[in-house]
Amino acid sequence: MLSEKMYQLGSRSSIIREIFEYGRKRKAEIGVENVYDFSLGNPNVPAPEAVKKAMIALLEEESPTALHSYTSAPGNPEVRCTIAESINRRFDMKLEGKNIYMTTGAAASISICFKALANEGDEFITFAPFFPEYTCFVEAAGGKLIVVPANIEDFQINFDEFDQLINEKTKAIIVNSPNNPSGAVYSEATIQKLVARLEEKSAEYGHPIFLISDEPYREIVYDDIFVPYLPKYYNNTFVCYSYSKSLSLPGDRIGYIVVPDEMIEFPKVFAAIAGSARALSYVCAPSFFQKVVAKCVEETADISIYENNRNVLYNALKEIGYECVKPEGAFYLFPRSLEPDAYAFCEKAKKYDLLLVPGDDFGCPGHIRISYCVKPEQIERSLPAFKKLFDEYQ
Amino acid sequence: MLSEKMYQLGSRSSIIREIFEYGRKRKAEIGVENVYDFSLGNPNVPAPEAVKKAMIALLEEESPTALHSYTSAPGNPEVRCTIAESINRRFDMKLEGKNIYMTTGAAASISICFKALANEGDEFITFAPFFPEYTCFVEAAGGKLIVVPANIEDFQINFDEFDQLINEKTKAIIVNSPNNPSGAVYSEATIQKLVARLEEKSAEYGHPIFLISDEPYREIVYDDIFVPYLPKYYNNTFVCYSYSKSLSLPGDRIGYIVVPDEMIEFPKVFAAIAGSARALSYVCAPSFFQKVVAKCVEETADISIYENNRNVLYNALKEIGYECVKPEGAFYLFPRSLEPDAYAFCEKAKKYDLLLVPGDDFGCPGHIRISYCVKPEQIERSLPAFKKLFDEYQ
Repeated sequence: MLSEKMYQLGSRSSIIREIFEYGRKRKAEIGVENVYDFSLGNPNVPAPEAVKKAMIALLEEESPTALHSYTSAPGNPEVRCTIAESINRRFDMKLEGKNIYMTTGAAASISICFKALANEGDEFITFAPFFPEYTCFVEAAGGKLIVVPANIEDFQINFDEFDQLINEKTKAIIVNSPNNPSGAVYSEATIQKLVARLEEKSAEYGHPIFLISDEPYREIVYDDIFVPYLPKYYNNTFVCYSYSKSLSLPGDRIGYIVVPDEMIEFPKVFAAIAGSARALSYVCAPSFFQKVVAKCVEETADISIYENNRNVLYNALKEIGYECVKPEGAFYLFPRSLEPDAYAFCEKAKKYDLLLVPGDDFGCPGHIRISYCVKPEQIERSLPAFKKLFDEYQ
Repeated sequence: MLSEKMYQLGSRSSIIREIFEYGRKRKAEIGVENVYDFSLGNPNVPAPEAVKKAMIALLEEESPTALHSYTSAPGNPEVRCTIAESINRRFDMKLEGKNIYMTTGAAASISICFKALANEGDEFITFAPFFPEYTCFVEAAGGKLIVVPANIEDFQINFDEFDQLINEKTKAIIVNSPNNPSGAVYSEATIQKLVARLEEKSAEYGHPIFLISDEPYREIVYDDIFVPYLPKYYNNTFVCYSYSKSLSLPGDRIGYIVVPDEMIEFPKVFAAIAGSARALSYVCAPSFFQKVVAKCVEETADISIYENNRNVLYNALKEIGYECVKPEGAFYLFPRSLEPDAYAFCEKAKKYDLLLVPGDDFGCPGHIRISYCVKPEQIERSLPAFKKLFDEYQ
């Protein structure tokens, strides 16, 4: 009667959703402030004032028809130019409006790329730990997701395992740096090594291997760390971006894809992107918010709040005795769980009203994700609970 | 290298797009006011003042985090309740929030339904003239679109042809009333006849045949005509709605799906809808605009402007001698072309700077679509051109 696949996708409750539901009940029982909910990746730093100002200015300056009409499918031409120019200024690129395809957020950006590229049997490689929805999106596009096990020393790429998995069926590589859930940022050395592999293997197999850079956390980085801009290193790169995190606009679903001129057969690839967006029924990215982000293109939410959270929580957990790679970006810590079974560990954590997510769904067992996009008070108040949880294992 | 299907979808220029590009050049040559462009279905009546007021009120009353955070995948619970209550008031239904799934516009609404239902080999039946993107969306979901030829007498349903085409593989029927491009509104008698067939055939085949009501033009109707609310007639009905036309917000991509309690196995069907939206990467419908439409749930743009356009243009074309079924809704006229080949007719119309769309792409050759969502002045100024075009055929 129904598509069994869609029914399964819609009825299988994700672990994050289960924790969320548990948290809701528990908060009702003992009070919101007594549940230390680190389960959700919903930005808690508000959108910058510039967003509100831009929205009001648009409402005052432009006609409703200009604000709310369909744009062409790839987006408002002026908005696309503004974004291209901003990228050029920040990353020394030479993009034009025609290289930007506006989308309904990063999930749309990556799904559009997957569907534009995938033929039956194609493989898409990503590196654990990885965003679990990749599996769903790649399969919906008709491809297969191949996961390279994590390099748990520093969460850079595990090249030995990668070399075992890349093959003639590899259509594209998906990287997510700054990374959800590890917080790692791939170094320039990592990127150079990856790109050398892709060039060698593309030549060997006689077809391009594309690079898909899923980077909604690009601006959420600390200590002035350098985040390589991938099209500068590799021509066949798609940059998939969203304003969800940088401007704290996750609900408004606005982002873009960069398709650089240097991409092999640019016009054909851009046409496939357009065709894929059409097949996914996007019509156009939200028109009013296209204009809003163009007006706020160099703004961000107050990242220092996340940085402060990271410092407080990371230092405290290290001092207690947890093992954790220091995250350089995004808003997650990804420490080792104190027993091999991260599910069991997260269950124990609940005793102290700590809501954590096991790393298994991110392809990295034995670890837990702590989303620190929460109020600083929650972090301060949660530290004794983390201590008690640790002590239970001693 | 690419998905050939997506490349084809993205590179095949639609006839409407070609006319649009021609129009752009021609307007640059002879001035916008001298090109009578009736090709696009972009609402020209501005969003009502209530939309701007709602947007500003939200910005002033609510925190950025409340406005811009992710909502749960089916939508903001309060918004869903508000919409359910509005439907109950207007159509004497008994919906609750749980029956509403918020979406990124009507294209998303119907695609989500198609993908939730389709298994390999499933057929979806629609009635010419029909919105050409149905083909793309149904095929992307893995189904096959079957088109019942038009009843060109009144653009109600051609039941003789329908009876030939419905079969065991029929998964769902798509109706679009008020109709793009004919402007027809299915009468209660038509709906009753359709529903009787669906009940009979569902019983005969031993599986439900779903009804998908694609109704973005519901409020754009004239002369107080009655538009049946389909879940009142048939339990297994999805209502796919968008605020694109009623509130003139086409670019903002906001709409919903109604899944009534009376739907067979409601929880399973609702789960499949959620799974399908997930596979299509929608995450959630735009959060700020969810709240905007909830605040404007009983508002519409000024429909009288379209009604006036219809009256002036319809009466003038009839007087000149064109044959045309009087449209009762939407903002299109769909007269017969003056020669069998509607493409050739539209080419001739260009001589008089009349930009019209051949009916062939809508599955109805020998007709042309005239979108009258244009300034009244354009209609007045175009009438001599319509007369000259007619005279050329005498």
